[in-house]
Amino acid sequence: MIILGIDPGLSLTGWGVIEAFSRDEVNPIHYGCIKTMPADSLIERLRCVHTKLQVIINKYKPDAVAVEELFFFKTAKSIAAVGQSRGAIVLTVSINNLPLFEYNPKIIKVALTGYGSADKHQMQHMVKIFLRLKEIPKPDDAADALAMAICHVNTIKWPEKSRMKS
Amino acid sequence: MIILGIDPGLSLTGWGVIEAFSRDEVNPIHYGCIKTMPADSLIERLRCVHTKLQVIINKYKPDAVAVEELFFFKTAKSIAAVGQSRGAIVLTVSINNLPLFEYNPKIIKVALTGYGSADKHQMQHMVKIFLRLKEIPKPDDAADALAMAICHVNTIKWPEKSRMKS
Repeated sequence: MIILGIDPGLSLTGWGVIEAFSRDEVNPIHYGCIKTMPADSLIERLRCVHTKLQVIINKYKPDAVAVEELFFFKTAKSIAAVGQSRGAIVLTVSINNLPLFEYNPKIIKVALTGYGSADKHQMQHMVKIFLRLKEIPKPDDAADALAMAICHVNTIKWPEKSRMKS
Repeated sequence: MIILGIDPGLSLTGWGVIEAFSRDEVNPIHYGCIKTMPADSLIERLRCVHTKLQVIINKYKPDAVAVEELFFFKTAKSIAAVGQSRGAIVLTVSINNLPLFEYNPKIIKVALTGYGSADKHQMQHMVKIFLRLKEIPKPDDAADALAMAICHVNTIKWPEKSRMKS
């Protein structure tokens, strides 16, 4: 199963693709960031996010997409920017008829570290461990996107057979 | 010129189509509301907004789309909902290669009533007058969408010839 994790933003949208054969057999495929230019208009920036995300979907053909739920402790301006980008991302996922899974920050933290109040560094460290990477993925947005994809692997019900492998 | 005004929302998205030959020759074409079901998932609701908006665009073939800017005196939850719907709407406009024009509430009020602090009833009354309608369009979201389309007519630069007609 190929899983695409996305950390939505208007300036930077992190993405990470992993391949999972079971809860314990997870390989990193690729990760990165979609950047948009603040000088561009909103319509240009959302079109950019959509076009680049479409390229990623075409290339890696994910079976599922995992996105973090919007959280509300940011400023109104920030929620508006992230929200609009997230709307464009969710619509792109929908146009591609891919299943979308939304996870709240606490669930993602528990899935990766077993602890709902884990800090950013703990999370990034666990992404590195889970995916057997030499370094913590950069930028943070890409690491966060990989965390969402891993959260999905750890949350879905795997067949008994594959679970017994561990 | 056919102008589509849109008042974005997640539960209700108002829309209104008008035809303008000059600043003073403006005819209503049609208006209404796109409704999504709160019981549905976000991806289903944004897909619904996109699909219905696509039907409207295919049917009326607008030359321009006018949308209100997001304003920030709502709650974070409301900004998140409207923001995500607005992101899906802006992306739909972009996919159709239509020009998008964004107006802030004050400019829309001035364009319709000459007064930046006009109340909802004054605005709706002016929509009725501008479009020579028998009644104020219902629901409010559709009237607001028509107001945005009228604002666009009153804001763009028309050729001298048509302006001298008045």
